[in-house]
Amino acid sequence: MKRADSSTPASMNRLAGLRLGCAASGERYHGRDDLLLVTLPPRSRVAGMFTRSSVVAAPVRWCRRHIAAGRARALLVNAGNANACTGRQGDEVAALCAAAVAQRLDCPPAEVLLASTGMIGEPLPSAPLLRGLKQAWARLGDSEGHWQDAARAIMTTDTVPKMVSQRLRLDGKEISINGIAKGSGMIAPDMATMLAFFFTDAAVPRATLEKMLRAAVEASFHRISIDGDNSTNDSVLLFATGEKGGLSAGALRQLAEALRALAVNLARRIVRDGEGAKKFVTIEIAGASSRASARRVALAIANSPLVKTALSGEDANWGRIAMAIGKSGERISLSRLGIAMGGVVLARNGAAVSLSPARKRRLERHMKEREIHIGANLGVGRGACEVWTCDLSHEYVSINGEYRS
Amino acid sequence: MKRADSSTPASMNRLAGLRLGCAASGERYHGRDDLLLVTLPPRSRVAGMFTRSSVVAAPVRWCRRHIAAGRARALLVNAGNANACTGRQGDEVAALCAAAVAQRLDCPPAEVLLASTGMIGEPLPSAPLLRGLKQAWARLGDSEGHWQDAARAIMTTDTVPKMVSQRLRLDGKEISINGIAKGSGMIAPDMATMLAFFFTDAAVPRATLEKMLRAAVEASFHRISIDGDNSTNDSVLLFATGEKGGLSAGALRQLAEALRALAVNLARRIVRDGEGAKKFVTIEIAGASSRASARRVALAIANSPLVKTALSGEDANWGRIAMAIGKSGERISLSRLGIAMGGVVLARNGAAVSLSPARKRRLERHMKEREIHIGANLGVGRGACEVWTCDLSHEYVSINGEYRS
Repeated sequence: MKRADSSTPASMNRLAGLRLGCAASGERYHGRDDLLLVTLPPRSRVAGMFTRSSVVAAPVRWCRRHIAAGRARALLVNAGNANACTGRQGDEVAALCAAAVAQRLDCPPAEVLLASTGMIGEPLPSAPLLRGLKQAWARLGDSEGHWQDAARAIMTTDTVPKMVSQRLRLDGKEISINGIAKGSGMIAPDMATMLAFFFTDAAVPRATLEKMLRAAVEASFHRISIDGDNSTNDSVLLFATGEKGGLSAGALRQLAEALRALAVNLARRIVRDGEGAKKFVTIEIAGASSRASARRVALAIANSPLVKTALSGEDANWGRIAMAIGKSGERISLSRLGIAMGGVVLARNGAAVSLSPARKRRLERHMKEREIHIGANLGVGRGACEVWTCDLSHEYVSINGEYRS
Repeated sequence: MKRADSSTPASMNRLAGLRLGCAASGERYHGRDDLLLVTLPPRSRVAGMFTRSSVVAAPVRWCRRHIAAGRARALLVNAGNANACTGRQGDEVAALCAAAVAQRLDCPPAEVLLASTGMIGEPLPSAPLLRGLKQAWARLGDSEGHWQDAARAIMTTDTVPKMVSQRLRLDGKEISINGIAKGSGMIAPDMATMLAFFFTDAAVPRATLEKMLRAAVEASFHRISIDGDNSTNDSVLLFATGEKGGLSAGALRQLAEALRALAVNLARRIVRDGEGAKKFVTIEIAGASSRASARRVALAIANSPLVKTALSGEDANWGRIAMAIGKSGERISLSRLGIAMGGVVLARNGAAVSLSPARKRRLERHMKEREIHIGANLGVGRGACEVWTCDLSHEYVSINGEYRS
């Protein structure tokens, strides 16, 4: 299921003032890049959202400490080692890396954002990163190929790089937004993606940047789940270089809308690349007491191993969906509960609907497709929400059982 | 991993006044019993605990409506069809079955308890059950064999019957407690077992019966998890026939303690029979802010697919344990966090411990064993709790993916 949302890979627009460089640090992986350096022009702004886990990686601690000022000159990402559960030494390595980047850019270390992904609990040596940094610096550039390399350098168990790009005409200017993300396991709200980075060349006030990011994440990464597991390192960062100047309020709204759409696109790509995933599953809940309640019900279905294995087995087992709705603990009316798969109503008023042979065939065909749709109406209100997930296959067990720490 | 806790199968004691009969109704299964009738003498008392799901099966609704009075003359259980999400027709079938049993015993239908397990959302026809009831009635008896048959008749995906029995000398009397249970998937607190039934021939006041059951369930079924999925039908019932007369307060305490131990034994057997389980995993949390917090952290670990697949792959991936602790959202001190597996300390003060070759070998040996121990100290208080779970294997995916609705 390695198709992206669009049939052709994203063609990445150039972003004024931004440069990317990758390197193979050799820290964990061999024969591939695992380090990404992004440099930004002075006056760039940043907003960020991070994991809500109470076990937080050193780079997340670093970012949280420094992001309040909203200034950014660089982003440094390493893949293979999460620098999580690494104690004081982990914090020191993070500070060391930020300082090394800052020295090259002649900026305060606080303006260097950090992100890591990979093994938890493995001490992260600084030497390979510092060597890699030198190589990445030498390779800085802003071509299409640089974006491709960047999206690949941050991958771990991902099987495809994930990137999106859009050019908008706003207030008579050509404004671009690019995004790259990685993540295919340990994916769950809140902060469903491991790492996602967005960049625009518009100038956006910090408060607006923050608001745009929250709205985009709410509509995208907070609505996907691969396995209900949440990471120590989840980070979403939005950078604005400001090279193209400021925008009117209306243009900013258009920019926010474009960001939201790109974030949804990336989030869905992450689900499509879910570890071992064979099915892309859309879960649409209506009739809930609130939107938040609808989201919790949708995620209870998305995270149920029994529902996910049934989908993997291409069985329209709506009883397991009813079970998952029930275990969510959210308010429902059992005598009004409706459940459909692929548009075929399977339960109405809390009980089975007997299917005509034609509808049975339609359902069977749907279950064999790669895109599965589950709909449920809880019968108590107007709250609605859509989330995306994938099935739970043998490959998930293989990938995660054979992975060696 | 089909060993029980004790190496020999439980030998079931006779219980004065109680009789059991099984039948093959042919409703879903073929060539096996799927219906269990238990009859109790007049003046028998019952207490019950049920699923907290908001999608509740008809037999659970029936029991909830009638159990307040605390009187019981019979229990009727069917396997293969859960009579859940079956609408008004499901309630009617439940009432019909209770009435049919009540007629034979000349008691109010309210004194007939019901339980079902199996497919959700499948209409349950009454005819096979009523035919089966006739057969079960004709086969009523109280031998060892009758108990064995009873434990088998309630099985669905279980691979072994689960039963426990103990005889106690209390106030100079021979008092017995027997228990049977079924469940191997869709197992999660609260109400971690699908169905469990306990019987004693002592006379126990209803309020005491209720208290004994709550304490026993808290220590047992609320501490196990196979897959985090919770059922529409979970029921635990405790019956007291009263044939051996009343007990002193001290004897009742001993009886409660025996019940607790038997419930723990049955709960652990359910985990051992977890769908596709190869490992029995004990998770022991200490240093939490409270016992409830410790339990939530333990269950976050127990329900993490990434932890469970690592265990299946025999990898001591403590980073995933740290991740699961973090995602629980419970209060911890990362700089004091300690994690051990098989008694080998892997993390201390939130960071990795470097292992000597001898300790590495000990850890590797432990991970290959069938009994895995995970310990964690959260470093914030004195709350502690132990839960039991199993690994997530290819077989789980096969069992649940190939299962046909």
